Amino acid sequence: MDINSDAHTQHISQQFNAELEEVRNSLLAMGGSVEKQVSDAVRALIDADSELGKQVRKNDDQINAMELTIDEECARILARRQPAASDLRLVIACSKMSTDLERIGDEAAKIAGHAIELTEEGEAPKGYIETRHIGARVRRMVQESLTAFARFDTEMALRVAQEDKSVDLEYQSAMRELVTFMMEDPRSITRVLNIMWVLRSLERIGDHARNIAEHVIYLVKGTDVRHIGLKRMKEEVLEK
Amino acid sequence: MDINSDAHTQHISQQFNAELEEVRNSLLAMGGSVEKQVSDAVRALIDADSELGKQVRKNDDQINAMELTIDEECARILARRQPAASDLRLVIACSKMSTDLERIGDEAAKIAGHAIELTEEGEAPKGYIETRHIGARVRRMVQESLTAFARFDTEMALRVAQEDKSVDLEYQSAMRELVTFMMEDPRSITRVLNIMWVLRSLERIGDHARNIAEHVIYLVKGTDVRHIGLKRMKEEVLEK
Repeated sequence: MDINSDAHTQHISQQFNAELEEVRNSLLAMGGSVEKQVSDAVRALIDADSELGKQVRKNDDQINAMELTIDEECARILARRQPAASDLRLVIACSKMSTDLERIGDEAAKIAGHAIELTEEGEAPKGYIETRHIGARVRRMVQESLTAFARFDTEMALRVAQEDKSVDLEYQSAMRELVTFMMEDPRSITRVLNIMWVLRSLERIGDHARNIAEHVIYLVKGTDVRHIGLKRMKEEVLEK
Repeated sequence: MDINSDAHTQHISQQFNAELEEVRNSLLAMGGSVEKQVSDAVRALIDADSELGKQVRKNDDQINAMELTIDEECARILARRQPAASDLRLVIACSKMSTDLERIGDEAAKIAGHAIELTEEGEAPKGYIETRHIGARVRRMVQESLTAFARFDTEMALRVAQEDKSVDLEYQSAMRELVTFMMEDPRSITRVLNIMWVLRSLERIGDHARNIAEHVIYLVKGTDVRHIGLKRMKEEVLEK
């Protein structure tokens, strides 16, 4: 009887672990898709490839569906398994991260929309180098925040948060240049505005990557590091 | 012994209800503060009141702290009480809604920043009527999404979601007018851009109010109505 009961407990626990692993894998799969969306959206803009832009917008439905699936999986685990401690934090973090990934997907779809508009209206006279550069940086932030999650690597998560601050500075400087350009060449306003919206979306994607990184730190360390500033975040991550 | 045990169970259950009530009240309190932030930020812009703008930016710290408190309360309830069914959905929804409220707070702080800039640079030549109008509409959306939550009123939540679509249209039309104005008067570009960013923030606030409304429907009906479109959302809400 004891043996049976042990076997039963073990079976439950294996199933539980399998479910946690599944939600973790779903989140990583969603992250991979979202990262590709960001990369494709920027490429659609740079290459004036409106077909690719349309594809990105179409794929957004799949991203949205992935968010719902992950949230369902999380709710099911909470209801049936009543996880505690680090298991609970994993579920909470996944549920929060799915929201950030979905929003990154939204921003990618917006970028794709501007890419399509610019293909139709003719290229903007300025801003492509900045878009390519900031685009590559935030795509890498998304990638690294997910790698940090996959490896429970808080130091990598910290680097993502630090990178966000530097991206914000580059974003602000690019925006100032574009405003100056607009004033000198008012005929370009509509097209330059498209690039400005794209940069704004990229900057938001960086914010969401930072959010994901903060959830990774919460999940591993048990400390909520949102809103505490980079200095204290670093102390939390590096303390033993 | 039985009586003691019953009393104990009842005590636990009362405590549990008190905790759920507490997180609900915390969320409503945060909602009230956020709503005031939106209203003050718009007023700072309209009245060119940079002191009020600075106050809004300062208050954002309190909003952020409220988010952390609510998420802590939710995590504690999940860990200790292992809620099921509608109690679980309430906790999940509160945790998601706290994120939306915090983002609304962020947008209000951004609006306040633009209000301060405009006070320093001199008024924009256009866009105040639109800002006042769209600002009042999204503030009402935030308010109604919270009332829908307080009363578990899915029909009111549905109206918020429907309103979001109409606000988006008004936003797009205001943006087009501002672009036209910029092209006619390039010297106004910097100031008009400030108004455009404000309108963009207001539009985002409307999106978040809609998210909150969708969480209310999930919490009451048990159905996740995100990404399904207004028509199917209406069917979900109105079906018995």
